[in-house]
Amino acid sequence: MARPLGPVRLKKASPVTLAIGAVFTILVLYFLIGSSAPDFSASRKASAASHPLSPPTSPFRKSTGGGKPKAPPVAHYNLNNVTITSDPLGNRENILLLTPMARFYQQYWDNLLKLSYPHELITLGFILPKTKEGNAATTELQKQIAKTQKSGPEKDRFKSIIILRQDFDPPLQSQDEAERHKIQNQKIRRAAMAKARNSLLFTTLGPATSWVLWLDADVIETPSDLIQDLAAHNKPVIAPNCFQRFYNTEKKAMDERPYDFNNWQDSPTAVELAKKMGPDDILLEGYADMATYRALMAYMHKTDGLRQETVPLDGVGGAALLVKADVHRDGAMFPPFSFYHLIETEGFAKMAKRLGWQPFGLPNYKVYHYNE
Amino acid sequence: MARPLGPVRLKKASPVTLAIGAVFTILVLYFLIGSSAPDFSASRKASAASHPLSPPTSPFRKSTGGGKPKAPPVAHYNLNNVTITSDPLGNRENILLLTPMARFYQQYWDNLLKLSYPHELITLGFILPKTKEGNAATTELQKQIAKTQKSGPEKDRFKSIIILRQDFDPPLQSQDEAERHKIQNQKIRRAAMAKARNSLLFTTLGPATSWVLWLDADVIETPSDLIQDLAAHNKPVIAPNCFQRFYNTEKKAMDERPYDFNNWQDSPTAVELAKKMGPDDILLEGYADMATYRALMAYMHKTDGLRQETVPLDGVGGAALLVKADVHRDGAMFPPFSFYHLIETEGFAKMAKRLGWQPFGLPNYKVYHYNE
Repeated sequence: MARPLGPVRLKKASPVTLAIGAVFTILVLYFLIGSSAPDFSASRKASAASHPLSPPTSPFRKSTGGGKPKAPPVAHYNLNNVTITSDPLGNRENILLLTPMARFYQQYWDNLLKLSYPHELITLGFILPKTKEGNAATTELQKQIAKTQKSGPEKDRFKSIIILRQDFDPPLQSQDEAERHKIQNQKIRRAAMAKARNSLLFTTLGPATSWVLWLDADVIETPSDLIQDLAAHNKPVIAPNCFQRFYNTEKKAMDERPYDFNNWQDSPTAVELAKKMGPDDILLEGYADMATYRALMAYMHKTDGLRQETVPLDGVGGAALLVKADVHRDGAMFPPFSFYHLIETEGFAKMAKRLGWQPFGLPNYKVYHYNE
Repeated sequence: MARPLGPVRLKKASPVTLAIGAVFTILVLYFLIGSSAPDFSASRKASAASHPLSPPTSPFRKSTGGGKPKAPPVAHYNLNNVTITSDPLGNRENILLLTPMARFYQQYWDNLLKLSYPHELITLGFILPKTKEGNAATTELQKQIAKTQKSGPEKDRFKSIIILRQDFDPPLQSQDEAERHKIQNQKIRRAAMAKARNSLLFTTLGPATSWVLWLDADVIETPSDLIQDLAAHNKPVIAPNCFQRFYNTEKKAMDERPYDFNNWQDSPTAVELAKKMGPDDILLEGYADMATYRALMAYMHKTDGLRQETVPLDGVGGAALLVKADVHRDGAMFPPFSFYHLIETEGFAKMAKRLGWQPFGLPNYKVYHYNE
């Protein structure tokens, strides 16, 4: 996977492009059980699709009377009990599962449905580009959502779902793997991806969210206990190892290989490279014109290794990433610009560290990326 | 006002302190007109306290039936009409008004009530520290909220109100002006303030928010058309000039003086100073051990100047600041760490610029700070 790449100068986007890009279209799909009165009780037992506390949206409600609106009642919510613990299930903690999506994969959705964490505690948030592919993906996604939320078994139904459409001039029209990975396209693509992640995060994070699970749309296979397993480590930021299944023509059998190279530990070489860079230069991993000699988690995997083994990380990928909501609330976002010569998820890891939160990785806990 | 200060090294907070600090307590005060069905109509005429679309919270609702929950209806919201324009009133754009509050000033609340922008389009968000003073301020604030939202005239009532309490080890117990302005306390105080702003922002920004108005709790007097006036300039980030009224003992009459020195244009001197700094060093304005020679907007005010005159800014203060929601959605937050040797609101201005959004100031448009 070592493709050549030197430090890359990040082109500043013009304010005009950004102004255009920033115009949102937002779809909110919202599911609720018919009700009329706010709950003043302290207990807050969740049930599928009935809890609009998080996400940050709830539909406009018409006045029932039709005539003059009634005096607004005052509901007072003391959410002292929003915890972030290693036992999210026991404490009934709310998960915000965020996915930037360019293509819809049925396997992604099927995998989501298999997650054993109570769906009534999971809010889904999506952001899709305003491209032809993005439109097609939105249609597919909405079809599956309707199926799950309306006619699926009650246990499958998620608490609520938000879809954002970003009127972004997409930096690259094609989502082909080869095109996406082209060195020159990476810096532009990742800045756009960082902005998409930020829009999704800033718009959906609510006061009741305990954990944010970032899960890429092309991650199609995870252990069903993913949320519980990751949260059990009680780390501010934690990433499983992202692999890819493929047909090994030599072995004439299915095989697997490391896929995500953004989870790494820093090296003296990379630190020295960064020192020589201009302020807008960024260093990308996974290509190695000037090899960084960073220790990649992708290569730390041991077949006989313990699944719960953790390693500290300096850079993380976004394929699958569990983040304590407080890390984001402190201000950790995905820099769309050079931040300590890092960008997007790798820049996020650096920002989390600057805020005092140490990221970790699980070299032997695997999730799988789609293979086209 | 030129008090001596050199570059300051920002102490990294320990992860433990942060972990403690990040535990939230949240109060959500929520006002709604009794209703039972989501509105499927395209039109979305706002009325006081009936629109929970933004903020990001809505109360948990009990199932009416008491028995088995009904199948969730699917509401589909296409928010294509979330605009951000120079005519927010004409386009009925939602404003999120955010205030970090350590002390409650009655004049602040009275000024808020006088804002001519339709209150039914304004969501208020507050964050208060978990200190003795913070507790007292929360009590006072809640008292005024109850009065306004329950028994006040309908036009006074805001769309919704969110109060966050931050379980933060407060860096300084005292909110006395002298103590707060002490040079050595500034860097710690501003990092804590940046985190408070981020928590408030990340937790309250919703998909329907068009503009975010930052208004400090000690800003007690603004023109009543503040929102319309600032938005009319259609700038991504815009700051009025913050002054303070005082009794001039020489003149034996009331007088006024510039107060907020965080709105500035960069200088070659400041740029040179920054170049010589270590990565964690920050440069603070308003004190001048090593004078920065930045052009301060506070001193650009002309008594006969046009109120609508704008100047580009490189640093901004948070006393009063109108921000297009898309600037925040792109990822612009308040760095609690050295960011290009800047912190908090000044760092925010730099971050907005890095994202392609140019901040502006209004030297002749004044708001007033409390004088103790």
